[in-house]
Amino acid sequence: MLKYDEEVLPTKWYNVVPDLPEPLPPPLSRAQDGSSIELLNRIIPREILRQEFSFNRYENIPEEVRDLYRLVGRPTPLIRANRLEEFLGYRGKIFLKYEGATVTGSHKINTAIPQAYYASRESVTGVATETGAGQWGTATTLAAALTGLHSKVFMVRVSYDQKPLRKTVMALYGGEVVASPSVETKFGRKMLQKDPRSTGSLGIAISEAVEYALDHDMKYMVGSVMNSVLSHQSIIGQETMKQLEITGEEPEAMIGCVGGGSNFGGFVFPFISNGKIEMIASTASEVPKFSRGKYDYDAMDTAGILPYVKMYSLGSDFIPPPIYSGGLRYHGAAPSLSILVKSGRISSQEVEEKEVLAALEIFARSTGIVAAPESGHAIASAIRYAKDHRHDPKTVVLNVSGHGNFDLSIYGGRAR
Amino acid sequence: MLKYDEEVLPTKWYNVVPDLPEPLPPPLSRAQDGSSIELLNRIIPREILRQEFSFNRYENIPEEVRDLYRLVGRPTPLIRANRLEEFLGYRGKIFLKYEGATVTGSHKINTAIPQAYYASRESVTGVATETGAGQWGTATTLAAALTGLHSKVFMVRVSYDQKPLRKTVMALYGGEVVASPSVETKFGRKMLQKDPRSTGSLGIAISEAVEYALDHDMKYMVGSVMNSVLSHQSIIGQETMKQLEITGEEPEAMIGCVGGGSNFGGFVFPFISNGKIEMIASTASEVPKFSRGKYDYDAMDTAGILPYVKMYSLGSDFIPPPIYSGGLRYHGAAPSLSILVKSGRISSQEVEEKEVLAALEIFARSTGIVAAPESGHAIASAIRYAKDHRHDPKTVVLNVSGHGNFDLSIYGGRAR
Repeated sequence: MLKYDEEVLPTKWYNVVPDLPEPLPPPLSRAQDGSSIELLNRIIPREILRQEFSFNRYENIPEEVRDLYRLVGRPTPLIRANRLEEFLGYRGKIFLKYEGATVTGSHKINTAIPQAYYASRESVTGVATETGAGQWGTATTLAAALTGLHSKVFMVRVSYDQKPLRKTVMALYGGEVVASPSVETKFGRKMLQKDPRSTGSLGIAISEAVEYALDHDMKYMVGSVMNSVLSHQSIIGQETMKQLEITGEEPEAMIGCVGGGSNFGGFVFPFISNGKIEMIASTASEVPKFSRGKYDYDAMDTAGILPYVKMYSLGSDFIPPPIYSGGLRYHGAAPSLSILVKSGRISSQEVEEKEVLAALEIFARSTGIVAAPESGHAIASAIRYAKDHRHDPKTVVLNVSGHGNFDLSIYGGRAR
Repeated sequence: MLKYDEEVLPTKWYNVVPDLPEPLPPPLSRAQDGSSIELLNRIIPREILRQEFSFNRYENIPEEVRDLYRLVGRPTPLIRANRLEEFLGYRGKIFLKYEGATVTGSHKINTAIPQAYYASRESVTGVATETGAGQWGTATTLAAALTGLHSKVFMVRVSYDQKPLRKTVMALYGGEVVASPSVETKFGRKMLQKDPRSTGSLGIAISEAVEYALDHDMKYMVGSVMNSVLSHQSIIGQETMKQLEITGEEPEAMIGCVGGGSNFGGFVFPFISNGKIEMIASTASEVPKFSRGKYDYDAMDTAGILPYVKMYSLGSDFIPPPIYSGGLRYHGAAPSLSILVKSGRISSQEVEEKEVLAALEIFARSTGIVAAPESGHAIASAIRYAKDHRHDPKTVVLNVSGHGNFDLSIYGGRAR
């Protein structure tokens, strides 16, 4: 492989747990018998579970996993957005870390690869998961293909019908995609009996994927929120650090968007001990988890199958409005990220959809990147930051979590 | 900018003309009065015209253009396709140069940027061009946005109706896109009078774009075939050369696909003087320009507005079958490339659509890249090469000219 890539691609994952301002509250079983913790042991690969509860600051990345990271386009580029700076009349610097450059088009592949890799080392027939908008399902099916595993994806019915292209990509990677609720699980059949025309939900899809994994000797793949997932995503921040170092730049502000928190955590956590860097988590005004959510134990999934974790949450029964940014509609935020927001180390900001769409358009014309609507929140926050710091220019680094090539319909209304 | 990118991004364009085995026959005016050569002077930026007829082996790339190359994602990655090697049981090495990693998703941006840049330095109101499948139009509108120019794109009616997403991207970049034939030009109105329901053709769209450019004090942007365009594309090959050098690899075979010849020429020409490298141009069986075309003077465009050039051609009135690979349906091949095929330095190979689709599927599952159907021809040829060299493994470098994110419907039929 190319020498210069070798310099940037990390050899270890960074785990923020030992560097948190207070201990991370452990996941709890909802049931008194501890059965939902026990469940994890059956559906999550052993090594992933070990990482989940690890207090080590670093974990080695197996060479096979690094090989796959290279194959899918890592390291991703760090780009100086000088035309955006000009457009905004900003005298500071704006860099963008572009996760949309991976072959699946988002950061999700960063954790799909190690999860599938560790699953492939146990005697399983494959992996199962759920997907809403499709980015996680896409990453899962490719990671499975690259590690020789079968993959089964329960795709929320409404997305299944609205996003045929996503289905095509997953099938192309060899994944088996079914609309959820489906007739393939007890839970799905129960849901269909209640409402044969159900459009589904992420909660139902998770329940189906977990049940399917249990019944078919498969492992279950987790897209966000869990510690191990944020730790895998730390390669984003570590690459950024190395790239800034090579460029001779010192970041003063880092901005990203938050759904479950994995792209944001992966991006900023490796910099957490540098107190000089301002960190801004951009969320959707329509899903105000940090400003109106409660910091307490809550269910990770709507069906409540998985253990409870302590986090900012709008309640696992929160029904988000149908904003374009499907990935930001999650009711909670990763426990480690929640602690850092609560402590004030990370500040949060909410952006309305209208501002996001305008930001995406400015961004496309000044960088050429058609960003995912989720990433549009981070972009809008970066534009705000540049306006606020017109007379006090700083070096800003922005994480663009994915491209919007499969979300182009959202641009239709605004474009001529 | 990152130091390691700086090492790979070229500072000069390479022009193959002085290294051709025989002199390049000059373009000729169809009319006796030389008016179509004169036309070029009015619609092509002066510096582009100078490059077109230059005998210099190298031309400096302006620093502003290099800046824009960086912005749109250059250098693009060179990736070792080791899972593809494994899948094929090939003991040689397969590298792929991935032009789909640019923000517009194909190599077309490499020439759109300098053409728009040089246009912006003359007193013009904007640039006009035609587009079929949409890749060239996409590159043109972004290059115009980045150089502060207005852009007008005449999109073949059938594609305009079939590919709404492409239109959305061009409009997002600020381009004005109209279906061709249109009422905005005399030629378009004439065509519509003849047939109000005309689905258009590239020939008509070119005529409209040229007429519009002349009437509106705009410059016309050329997507392929011309010398200057192939020279701009030489950054693909030059980057590849540097990346292989850094990796310590010696290429033994280079494979790419040929429409007008710009991605292929740009990829292999910088290596042309290395006689040890086999070069294979992959074309569509349905458009057999090298095997059944005639090497003679022919029109570049169907309407015959532009000068005649000497090249392999199926005739400018050739009507290609409706294969998925819109970019490979062109009737001719660049004059410089034609000479090198005629001399035997470059060999050509034809692949049928069925084999292409199977190759695209294998490629997606082993690399994660959903390649453009055009690039699928190169991939199919690389797979053939690996099979033919099972017992005589070589180091193969494959140019993947673009991603197929906007062409996913072609995969639909094959995927489950």
